[in-house]
Amino acid sequence: MAAAARLAMRARPLSRPNPGVAALVVYQGRIIARGWTRPGGRPHAEAEALAGLAPQVLAEATLYVTLEPCAHRSERGPACADLIVAARPARVVVGQHDPDPRTSGAGIARLEAAGIATTLLDDPASAASLAGFLTRQRMHRPWVTLKLAMSLDGCIAMADGSSRWITGETGRAHVHSRRAQADAILVGGGTWRADKPSLDVRLPGLEHRSPQKLVLTRGPAPAKDFTAISSPQAIAELEGVQYLYVEGGAEAAAAFLVADLVDELHLYRAPILIGDGRRSLGALGLANLAEAHDRWQLAERRQLGSDSFEAYLRCRN
Amino acid sequence: MAAAARLAMRARPLSRPNPGVAALVVYQGRIIARGWTRPGGRPHAEAEALAGLAPQVLAEATLYVTLEPCAHRSERGPACADLIVAARPARVVVGQHDPDPRTSGAGIARLEAAGIATTLLDDPASAASLAGFLTRQRMHRPWVTLKLAMSLDGCIAMADGSSRWITGETGRAHVHSRRAQADAILVGGGTWRADKPSLDVRLPGLEHRSPQKLVLTRGPAPAKDFTAISSPQAIAELEGVQYLYVEGGAEAAAAFLVADLVDELHLYRAPILIGDGRRSLGALGLANLAEAHDRWQLAERRQLGSDSFEAYLRCRN
Repeated sequence: MAAAARLAMRARPLSRPNPGVAALVVYQGRIIARGWTRPGGRPHAEAEALAGLAPQVLAEATLYVTLEPCAHRSERGPACADLIVAARPARVVVGQHDPDPRTSGAGIARLEAAGIATTLLDDPASAASLAGFLTRQRMHRPWVTLKLAMSLDGCIAMADGSSRWITGETGRAHVHSRRAQADAILVGGGTWRADKPSLDVRLPGLEHRSPQKLVLTRGPAPAKDFTAISSPQAIAELEGVQYLYVEGGAEAAAAFLVADLVDELHLYRAPILIGDGRRSLGALGLANLAEAHDRWQLAERRQLGSDSFEAYLRCRN
Repeated sequence: MAAAARLAMRARPLSRPNPGVAALVVYQGRIIARGWTRPGGRPHAEAEALAGLAPQVLAEATLYVTLEPCAHRSERGPACADLIVAARPARVVVGQHDPDPRTSGAGIARLEAAGIATTLLDDPASAASLAGFLTRQRMHRPWVTLKLAMSLDGCIAMADGSSRWITGETGRAHVHSRRAQADAILVGGGTWRADKPSLDVRLPGLEHRSPQKLVLTRGPAPAKDFTAISSPQAIAELEGVQYLYVEGGAEAAAAFLVADLVDELHLYRAPILIGDGRRSLGALGLANLAEAHDRWQLAERRQLGSDSFEAYLRCRN
């Protein structure tokens, strides 16, 4: 299941508006086939993984799939549940329940009705690989990642605004790879006016992955390739956006944090001290220190050249 | 040699004013004896390690010692070089040259003159274990560690000054263990007025290790157990202090950084965001971002409960 969840990252973000699902077929202890949701949402992962396997192999095989197979037929293809019933694997293991009301248990029910042994897990790795889809289904908004690139003492620029460069080349390339996994990127109005950032993915081979560009501003969009968003809450209206990447500045970052609309925090830290530079965040309106605690949990840490990268997840109980 | 350097940490800081040295005796591939500088500086590590070993064992043994054996007799005991010549181990391996003018090569010369095979290394682990002594000898001041405890966004307190607690219990116990390794602790005048910190070592069994207490202030000492220091440069006058631990606040930290008198940076970071709190550092007077780079190198990182600890060393070439 962990291997399937890792594979599912390949579907991100081009599977939109469909969830980025992955499927693996295991036969006699080995993975013999795999699939993930293709750009635009078709084919589905299950269709890819099961295609061309012989019935006598399938009769002894287990299908692992990160999300419950869909139960609804569409003009774009058959329901995956029907496709699996026709293929008849010995067992199916599902990583996560599909909250989409058109499936929501009906996919698994159809497999069981056809006599296929089916197990539903509540697998955290599958959930993480489907974060954007699950957040949209359950909370009706995209999964939001806030990126901050700063010095050890928490500055994102010198006092005069200069910030080229705080982090090194490896760190900046990592940011571009994360942009490529987003459906949309947002900056604050102040950052747009100061830096006029292009927000493109500047990595060889991934240039076409450059996501939709948003500016947080009460006014109109400041450039024709940018869309204006009047408040953090307005991200709910971004149709088809599962993953939103917020790149600052300090006031936009604070606005998303105050609205409790940040699911994941990406910190890039360079081994430098700035002192009286620009702070990474605006006011958060905390009443006391206790309020700041128990909100963030370290999920990943790695070294990127001389910079360090940390991902923190919002604790939601 | 690495094992000897680790052992030498036991001598710190109570060996003052002597260097905290360690010695190991290896015979037939095993460590058969060890010693480290005892509180107050006596016995020396070599005397401890060699005591009571039979001549026929020593004749085939190697003595590893982190610092060149002293060549000068004092009223407190014989020179270690003489003591080693009398014990006659087969070989001596030395981690670091002793820059003290009373020894400075004379210790090794005496061993060689007596026909004992002696090797002088330039061992980084030995150097690190002797940082306070070597810095005092070479730069005529203590080794300075600056500690900062902060949020992920670099705040050391809320805007109203409250900072109890940013880091958790494990992190705070780690700070106390580091205090116990210092000869003196310093806080800025503002921190003293705001917090009246006791700066004691509050760890069971280590209470007596509480170091000398200093305040960075142009005025007189604000309490009778504190000593006033008028500027960072004045630390050169602290007789017998090999290790100085600076606990902030932001202005005192900046003053030491501006004077380039910080050798090691200890960062404790809690997984919280504060936003508009108190900054960790005052103005550093950097002309541009390039000036901030290539000064600090990550030396250690560990998790302390939910907080993370990082040590950075000042790059000095």
